[in-house]
Amino acid sequence: MEAVDYLAEERRKAEFDVEEMKIVWAGSRHAYEISDRVSRLVASDPVFRKDNRTMLSRKDLFKDTLRKAAHAWKRIIELRLSEEEAKTLRFYVDQPAYTDLHWGMFIPAIKGQGTEEQQQKWLPMAYKMQIIGCYAQTELGHGSNVQGLETTAKFDPQTDEFVIHSPTLTSSKWWPGGLGKVSTHAVVYARLIIDGQDHGVHGFIVQLRSLDDHSPLPGITVGDVGMKFGSGAYNSMDNGVLRFDHVRIPRNQMLMRVSQVTREGKYMQSDVPRQLVYGTMVYVRQTIVSDASRALSRAVCIATRYSAVRRQFGSQNGGPETQVINYKTQQSRLFPLLASAYAFKFVGEWLKWLYADVTQRLEANDFSTLPEAHACTAGLKSVTTSATADAIEECRKLCGGHGYLSSSGLPELFAVYIPACTYEGDNIVLLLQVARFLMKTVSQLGSGKNPVGTTAYMGRVEHLTQCNCEVQRAEDWLKPSVILEAFEARAARMSVACAKSLSKFSNPEEGFAELSADLVEAAVAHCQLIIVSKFIEKLQQDIPGKGVKRQLETLCNIYALYLLHKHLGDFISTGSISPKQGALANEQLRLLYSQVRPSVIALVDAFNYTDHYLGSILGCYDGNVYQKLYDEAWKDPLNETVVPDGYHEYIRPILKQHIRNARL
Amino acid sequence: MEAVDYLAEERRKAEFDVEEMKIVWAGSRHAYEISDRVSRLVASDPVFRKDNRTMLSRKDLFKDTLRKAAHAWKRIIELRLSEEEAKTLRFYVDQPAYTDLHWGMFIPAIKGQGTEEQQQKWLPMAYKMQIIGCYAQTELGHGSNVQGLETTAKFDPQTDEFVIHSPTLTSSKWWPGGLGKVSTHAVVYARLIIDGQDHGVHGFIVQLRSLDDHSPLPGITVGDVGMKFGSGAYNSMDNGVLRFDHVRIPRNQMLMRVSQVTREGKYMQSDVPRQLVYGTMVYVRQTIVSDASRALSRAVCIATRYSAVRRQFGSQNGGPETQVINYKTQQSRLFPLLASAYAFKFVGEWLKWLYADVTQRLEANDFSTLPEAHACTAGLKSVTTSATADAIEECRKLCGGHGYLSSSGLPELFAVYIPACTYEGDNIVLLLQVARFLMKTVSQLGSGKNPVGTTAYMGRVEHLTQCNCEVQRAEDWLKPSVILEAFEARAARMSVACAKSLSKFSNPEEGFAELSADLVEAAVAHCQLIIVSKFIEKLQQDIPGKGVKRQLETLCNIYALYLLHKHLGDFISTGSISPKQGALANEQLRLLYSQVRPSVIALVDAFNYTDHYLGSILGCYDGNVYQKLYDEAWKDPLNETVVPDGYHEYIRPILKQHIRNARL
Ligand SMILES: Cc1cc2nc3c(=O)[nH]c(=O)nc-3n(C[C@H](O)[C@H](O)[C@H](O)COP(=O)(O)OP(=O)(O)OC[C@H]3O[C@@H](n4cnc5c(N)ncnc54)[C@H](O)[C@@H]3O)c2cc1C
Ligand SMILES: Cc1cc2nc3c(=O)[nH]c(=O)nc-3n(C[C@H](O)[C@H](O)[C@H](O)COP(=O)(O)OP(=O)(O)OC[C@H]3O[C@@H](n4cnc5c(N)ncnc54)[C@H](O)[C@@H]3O)c2cc1C
Ligand SMILES: [Ca+2]
Repeated sequence: MEAVDYLAEERRKAEFDVEEMKIVWAGSRHAYEISDRVSRLVASDPVFRKDNRTMLSRKDLFKDTLRKAAHAWKRIIELRLSEEEAKTLRFYVDQPAYTDLHWGMFIPAIKGQGTEEQQQKWLPMAYKMQIIGCYAQTELGHGSNVQGLETTAKFDPQTDEFVIHSPTLTSSKWWPGGLGKVSTHAVVYARLIIDGQDHGVHGFIVQLRSLDDHSPLPGITVGDVGMKFGSGAYNSMDNGVLRFDHVRIPRNQMLMRVSQVTREGKYMQSDVPRQLVYGTMVYVRQTIVSDASRALSRAVCIATRYSAVRRQFGSQNGGPETQVINYKTQQSRLFPLLASAYAFKFVGEWLKWLYADVTQRLEANDFSTLPEAHACTAGLKSVTTSATADAIEECRKLCGGHGYLSSSGLPELFAVYIPACTYEGDNIVLLLQVARFLMKTVSQLGSGKNPVGTTAYMGRVEHLTQCNCEVQRAEDWLKPSVILEAFEARAARMSVACAKSLSKFSNPEEGFAELSADLVEAAVAHCQLIIVSKFIEKLQQDIPGKGVKRQLETLCNIYALYLLHKHLGDFISTGSISPKQGALANEQLRLLYSQVRPSVIALVDAFNYTDHYLGSILGCYDGNVYQKLYDEAWKDPLNETVVPDGYHEYIRPILKQHIRNARL
Repeated sequence: MEAVDYLAEERRKAEFDVEEMKIVWAGSRHAYEISDRVSRLVASDPVFRKDNRTMLSRKDLFKDTLRKAAHAWKRIIELRLSEEEAKTLRFYVDQPAYTDLHWGMFIPAIKGQGTEEQQQKWLPMAYKMQIIGCYAQTELGHGSNVQGLETTAKFDPQTDEFVIHSPTLTSSKWWPGGLGKVSTHAVVYARLIIDGQDHGVHGFIVQLRSLDDHSPLPGITVGDVGMKFGSGAYNSMDNGVLRFDHVRIPRNQMLMRVSQVTREGKYMQSDVPRQLVYGTMVYVRQTIVSDASRALSRAVCIATRYSAVRRQFGSQNGGPETQVINYKTQQSRLFPLLASAYAFKFVGEWLKWLYADVTQRLEANDFSTLPEAHACTAGLKSVTTSATADAIEECRKLCGGHGYLSSSGLPELFAVYIPACTYEGDNIVLLLQVARFLMKTVSQLGSGKNPVGTTAYMGRVEHLTQCNCEVQRAEDWLKPSVILEAFEARAARMSVACAKSLSKFSNPEEGFAELSADLVEAAVAHCQLIIVSKFIEKLQQDIPGKGVKRQLETLCNIYALYLLHKHLGDFISTGSISPKQGALANEQLRLLYSQVRPSVIALVDAFNYTDHYLGSILGCYDGNVYQKLYDEAWKDPLNETVVPDGYHEYIRPILKQHIRNARL
């Protein structure tokens, strides 16, 4: 059969150079080249097939995951892939596995919290995967409140060991990925107890399983926590439960970079400041923001392509119906998500820079930017993951009924993505941290301590609480300076309003608790400002390629004006803009949708996703949706027989009116 | 082990009579009695167990569903259950099955569109389930646009038959529930063609399978469409694909209540008006609104109970931590959903009344209220199902990490619920219909034709576009008249603004298309007004029971002020309220949260859901969450062995550095 590109016409309409945009999306030509090559490599390897994943039983799915992880590792070694290439390969395998935690949490924890000596001992083994590790912090009864963990690590001076113990049911470790069935080791967080004194929560390297036969070591009870959301999805991961019954480890397996316990049982702080651990958090959360743009762009790619294929209503004189992507409602739901994907991409890139900057400063003993960087990454993690989770489901709805089929890829994408709103900090708890930082920033205004980084605009609070938005015509909303000021004014005014309300409480903690819902909204406003401003900053760079920058400008405006419309109440009630100006923004937004419309297929092509990675019939590159949907249906196990198993026992007796006597 | 009620303390705090509230929730003492009895009956029957459902393979799940459906039918017959009791039983079995479509769509379609004669022929067989039917409208290429269906029914005057045919791939029927594996018959929608002339889409009763051995009849290709969202969930349903290859049916199997084809092939309209079919739609959508309140209340019950069990942070002097339900952010996310559950319940009840009213009028040949009733049910279906889908996911997030476990019940509830946003009319397409009706209503103002029913407020448009909200203090927001006027003003002003913008277009259809995103927002405002006003009306009734009415008033205020805060932009930008009044509403909302807090556990107890129906460890009545989570985990198939299947092939070679030589 000849290959037809059902979206060829759409591709011809693009008003910019797609190949150049691919490089912008990837971040650099180098990154593009790796991503392109490795994604094809994965797509063409039969071991990495995933199209039947949602039909596998838990056990088969898990075994399939072990196989893929092993095969990936084999390929990485055989092809001598660089660290970056290896990471890219794991990413495109697109199946959560214990390796994510080994590379993403276990190793970084040792790097961040282990002494030089500890790093030299453990990291080489970990890099070679002679040991496999996970990150065991959360317990059945304690997640967000890490300081409330119950697991204990008692120092035994007689043997120079720590005794790790789970004193209660609720102290069972619960959730760590890779723990349930695979990890041989874990970084375990436990309360350090010396001579009856509680020194708070610390990390310990604990071996869990025998390296000979994989059986759990004495005193260790370990297993999988059971099925999670959806089919396929995160069920490939062995999130685990773990109980310790007085498990002994040598003293030198406490991660001692920041604080130590001596042979004599003396607890000491090293000169390495505690804030160092924030560095790791900035790193991990930056990767989560990057992942948000990838998950979001994937969903958007599916919904956009399908919306161009799908036709409904509006046929004239027996001609074809209207592509649903031409409906303004469809555009107003979809295009802002496309714009968000780009926005999150660029803020993610900026976070990478921020992490590098923070690391450099830390090495020079400069901790001044750390609190701001910490708050900002916490907030961006929260805002981008929440938006992405919602957006994936919206993309599914944008596909109408067919979005509900597993073969659309969207159900599994949703199910596998949503825990990002919860792990590495519950999104609301994170926003409360941001709010706390904002209130501190406001309270210090005028004290000579100038707000830095993403809070620098607070330094202009007087102006921002008084300025008037100068928009008079719809097109005035296209000026970056106008958009920026509106977002700054809104964020600043919301923070200041919260601070004012807070000051009426005699007990500030009570006030904070009482006003916390408003504080969360102020934090969101602040984070959205960051994203908008980083998008605008990106556009101040040189961006080569015919029409590329132009498209990005349109997307930036769509993103900003969409947020403005969505949070119109904030903008107007703070007086940052007038109702009339809000209406003009909405008008401009409609024009922007028309403007971007011809290019949207090319804008999702620029993500350069293979059909393998997309994993969606609705999003397939060639748009040949219906034939593929039809063919796929017949593969369901239910279709192995025409008359279903159970007919004789459970259907026929009904039809034949024998149900009373049927044995069911 | 002695049963401990971990929520006993919470139950003691309730400030109203729970037993009386149960009756309010159920709708009547009679309904309560049935619901209570039947739900216990189902819960105590081992055949109806569903706690391992998400672990079953598709085939096992489907067979389990057939068994449950047969057992349910057997019990219905044995116990001589009334129609209402039978329906309640099917509801509490809580597993989508072909019977839903047989009773919910096939039978109503014949009742609504069949002649007396046809009803007499088919309904008795259907009631006895000697035949099992489904509703086959949607096609692979055509959903929302029913008029675009491609399946043909050509009249063959020679044999007095219709020839049903699928001329294209995209004309394959796709989605009908119960079609894939079970239905013996279907109401099939097809284009009626007589002598080359296309008379548009009509319904036909078509036999699909042999009543002897269940094999598909000649010319019929039928199967299941494959896996859908999630595990368990809607995968128990055999949504089907169906192709016709010139299948012949007798002429009298066209549903002929509204139009007929004579022996001679003459197409005729009967004197029964076409609008009659709207009656069926009002009925079906009313049940969907009721279902929304049930699904929502179920999610809210789980999240509320767990939020009272879960503690995080704020421990003082080693005492217990704070129940997360006491955090204002948790309250501001959860309590509005609790209020929404009640709001949807009451608007659902009102819709039941509306359906009865419409039916009565139809019988008296009064069609005057039909368009308004039709628009109003379309809108309420859309608004309540969208809100419920979002709310279920929000409830899951409110449970932190543990909400992501299948055993929380929330993933499956989400997966099974969300198609309600798509079937029986895509929610956006429905809102556009409402908007169209609103624009028509506005355009006819002053023409002497007074708006009726839920659009009656439009008759006061002059007042509503000029009135000033009189709120000066937070407590002014407690007055129903104040709330109502604010909602009416907002809805009226948004509609009027749209109408004004529309009038600037020379081509009204173009204008409608261009402004459709705004029109959808106006439609939402209108529908929210209806829900708020029906809640307020409900409270004007006598409601017995200590404190019951008081609680409902609090919930009604929470619902309204929550919407007001969420859509603040609408209210302020239309000038319906001032920013200051918006802030006062928010202040009042916080107070209402504190006010309702002591009663929330009792308010979810009032739903009277069994643990079986809830299907959630986090929501279990006694609150013994941790022990149950822990015990449940070990039941996962992955935990059958300590060392997982695949260890030797895929883990050991990595650890032992033999991966290069491993055969994977
Ligand atoms: C798929 C998945 C993978 C995971 N992987 C790991 C892993 O590898 N290692 C690991 O250690 N852990 C892991 N976790 C655990 C994860 O980090 C926690 O679930 C997360 O930190 C949230 O904590 P929680 O579950 O205790 O939520 P809770 O804190 O119990 O949240 C419940 C509710 O309470 C609210 N709340 C809590 N505290 C406050 C407050 N102070 N103010 C206002 N509201 C509050 C929350 O907003 C939420 O609505 C994983 C979890 C999941 C779901
Ligand atoms: C679980 C499930 C069960 C079902 N059961 C049955 C059944 O028993 N029998 C049956 O016949 N069908 C059934 N259906 C089909 C269902 O009724 C259709 O999926 C539904 O009507 C939506 O149509 P669609 O899928 O064609 O969506 P589409 O119309 O293709 O929607 C795609 C997108 O286009 C947009 N859109 C479409 N038209 C317009 C417009 N004019 N203006 C603006 N935007 C527009 C929509 O908003 C949506 O975002 C079922 C579907 C599901 C998911
Ligand atoms: Ca809003």
